[in-house]
Amino acid sequence: MSAGDRPGLLPVEEALAKLMSLAESAPITEVERVALADADGRVLAAPLIAGLDLPPWANSAMDGYALCLAEWRGEPMAVSQRIQAGSAPKPLQPGSCARIFTGAPLPAGADTVEMQENVEVDGVGRVRFREPLKLGQNVRPQGQETRVGDHVLPAGTRLGPIELGLAASLGMAELQVRRRPRVAVVSTGDELVEPGLPLGPGQIYNSNRRLLITWLQRLGCAVVDGGILADDLAQTRAALSALSDVDLILSTGGVSVGEADFLGVALREEGELTLWKLAIKPGKPLTFGQFRGVPVLGLPGNPASTLVTFGLLARPYLLRRLGVQRVEPLGFAMPAGFTWSKPGKRREYLRARLEGGRVVPYPNQSSGVLRSAAWAEGIAEVLEGSTLVEGDSLRFIPLSEILG
Amino acid sequence: MSAGDRPGLLPVEEALAKLMSLAESAPITEVERVALADADGRVLAAPLIAGLDLPPWANSAMDGYALCLAEWRGEPMAVSQRIQAGSAPKPLQPGSCARIFTGAPLPAGADTVEMQENVEVDGVGRVRFREPLKLGQNVRPQGQETRVGDHVLPAGTRLGPIELGLAASLGMAELQVRRRPRVAVVSTGDELVEPGLPLGPGQIYNSNRRLLITWLQRLGCAVVDGGILADDLAQTRAALSALSDVDLILSTGGVSVGEADFLGVALREEGELTLWKLAIKPGKPLTFGQFRGVPVLGLPGNPASTLVTFGLLARPYLLRRLGVQRVEPLGFAMPAGFTWSKPGKRREYLRARLEGGRVVPYPNQSSGVLRSAAWAEGIAEVLEGSTLVEGDSLRFIPLSEILG
Repeated sequence: MSAGDRPGLLPVEEALAKLMSLAESAPITEVERVALADADGRVLAAPLIAGLDLPPWANSAMDGYALCLAEWRGEPMAVSQRIQAGSAPKPLQPGSCARIFTGAPLPAGADTVEMQENVEVDGVGRVRFREPLKLGQNVRPQGQETRVGDHVLPAGTRLGPIELGLAASLGMAELQVRRRPRVAVVSTGDELVEPGLPLGPGQIYNSNRRLLITWLQRLGCAVVDGGILADDLAQTRAALSALSDVDLILSTGGVSVGEADFLGVALREEGELTLWKLAIKPGKPLTFGQFRGVPVLGLPGNPASTLVTFGLLARPYLLRRLGVQRVEPLGFAMPAGFTWSKPGKRREYLRARLEGGRVVPYPNQSSGVLRSAAWAEGIAEVLEGSTLVEGDSLRFIPLSEILG
Repeated sequence: MSAGDRPGLLPVEEALAKLMSLAESAPITEVERVALADADGRVLAAPLIAGLDLPPWANSAMDGYALCLAEWRGEPMAVSQRIQAGSAPKPLQPGSCARIFTGAPLPAGADTVEMQENVEVDGVGRVRFREPLKLGQNVRPQGQETRVGDHVLPAGTRLGPIELGLAASLGMAELQVRRRPRVAVVSTGDELVEPGLPLGPGQIYNSNRRLLITWLQRLGCAVVDGGILADDLAQTRAALSALSDVDLILSTGGVSVGEADFLGVALREEGELTLWKLAIKPGKPLTFGQFRGVPVLGLPGNPASTLVTFGLLARPYLLRRLGVQRVEPLGFAMPAGFTWSKPGKRREYLRARLEGGRVVPYPNQSSGVLRSAAWAEGIAEVLEGSTLVEGDSLRFIPLSEILG
């Protein structure tokens, strides 16, 4: 154990703050240009700066008639041109109006649009405006939304459908993003077998590998399958050495001072190992270290613990290494639909649903139960040392906030 | 216009109910088997049924010592075997205990585990149990989590990291899923130019195409780029005919009874067209129809309207066609951090953030502003006909609930 270990339990906030600081000291800074089609889930490496005004020219918000308000004296106006969206209008002929459609550019000289429902067209095609008109009505001015040079999105923004639509609206076909983090997933435990293979005596199927690989891919990572570490020091060392070009080795199954823990031995011999006991349930043991300079994060091995520690700690760590500022999920103060009478030493994360606007936990919160997470809509946070009666408020984090 | 049109505004719930019924009458039922690695975001075609117990055998929840409680009379016990996770134990020798590690199978004859911290080992290696022992303590019984034959996930479940981890834990390497929906994205409007190309007079960049393609891919759809429909009836008809093998044609830019609307003309001539005026802002006009039997959904063309109508109506429609039951996003009753004094005829969806636990809308809610959506954390729902003062409750839907 290193000097970073503590005798007591480490509060979740402190663990997160330590991980943020570790992430900021090892940023992934390499940049690549990718087409918008390949940019979903990636992180902007530079601010997105508008290269044009949006809209690029004043345009009509309605199907109707464009005029220069100062020229209108109440009399009907002739229609001197017809402007479809996508066309380039001529300057407005003085004293006339223009037929115009939604999104079409306002002709030079026009400043006001009346919607077609509010006018009458007489027998010779002249337009009578019936309602009082207001200067600039139904006109979207040039640059109303965005001006050339605006910082539209900051560096560190995670890109999704909205951000990519926004980049497209500015005419950008490519974006500068951070390269994908390379993350190796390794499992420890001789009892683990991959799905599809027969199960021998004493063996169980490896569920964390699939959970983490799928999740890491959603976070934009390039995943390296590091397999299952053998219960042997030389083989463990060789397996870790083969991962020298990754940005993170993510292990599950726990690292400990235990007798058969060769991952722990390898880290202590050729790197660094800090064991944290977190004030978190499920999930207590967490390891941070490095092997020959490659950061290693060790999550507890039972799937519900892996879920909570990955979602609340490893996910923010990875995103912060890419420069993402907003790494914490949204949480909502919601009323409890249950009673919590035994205050715990650790902060408890319950797999829960909302029923009638109240938080209802899955009946069996045993930490081995991944099924509860599939049932759940979110995780509900019961603070250390607290009790709850029905109606008391607690924080509810939708799973959608951490799974992508 | 068909008989389905209504003179008034259609409430959002009614529009959703109509779309659900349309989706259920056109389910996508073809099934394919995919490896877990290819199953993220797909929809289960059949219930996931457990083929084994979880855990498959009773095992130890702790590092410690396993014994048969009835044989223990308070005296120290010899250690007759050592059981690592992954090994196959021999039956427990009567009167002895077994060294056992977390996750290792309990030997036949043992029923109780004491954690190593609570025992003393004497000079000849015998174990003295100090605490009172309780039958079955620290033992995870076989089938505690899942029993053979359990329906672990229902058909219609969307698969993500948790569900795939769960399938892996049951040893499944492949799953039966619905095939991907094929969705064609078409835009209408001569003014639209794709990003990367130069912008001519009166032209703007097409942002909806990128928004929708990215979003549809997140929903597991195979996207067909139907391009931009020309302002010409014969070309529009030819373009639609080329899309005869898709499950949905999704158009943006509006379909109307307007003069230049060739998509509307083509649908009326060779299919069906219903125009809905929704009590929703942004987003009022919505079209449902078909072209030679292929369903067509027409969303309004400005990006904020596209966002809201796709997220609240088209997304549930597509998911329901795959048999997904839970298609609506989670919403949270949160206090308003603003005043809303003008009751509207339409339900208004504000791009908003949470600040200090209160809902704060983006200052400019003009429907052309996709930038507000990139700033937002969710959309907040102001009901038709209602006013709000600070602290009043309104529904807040996290964007993460609709973007995936």
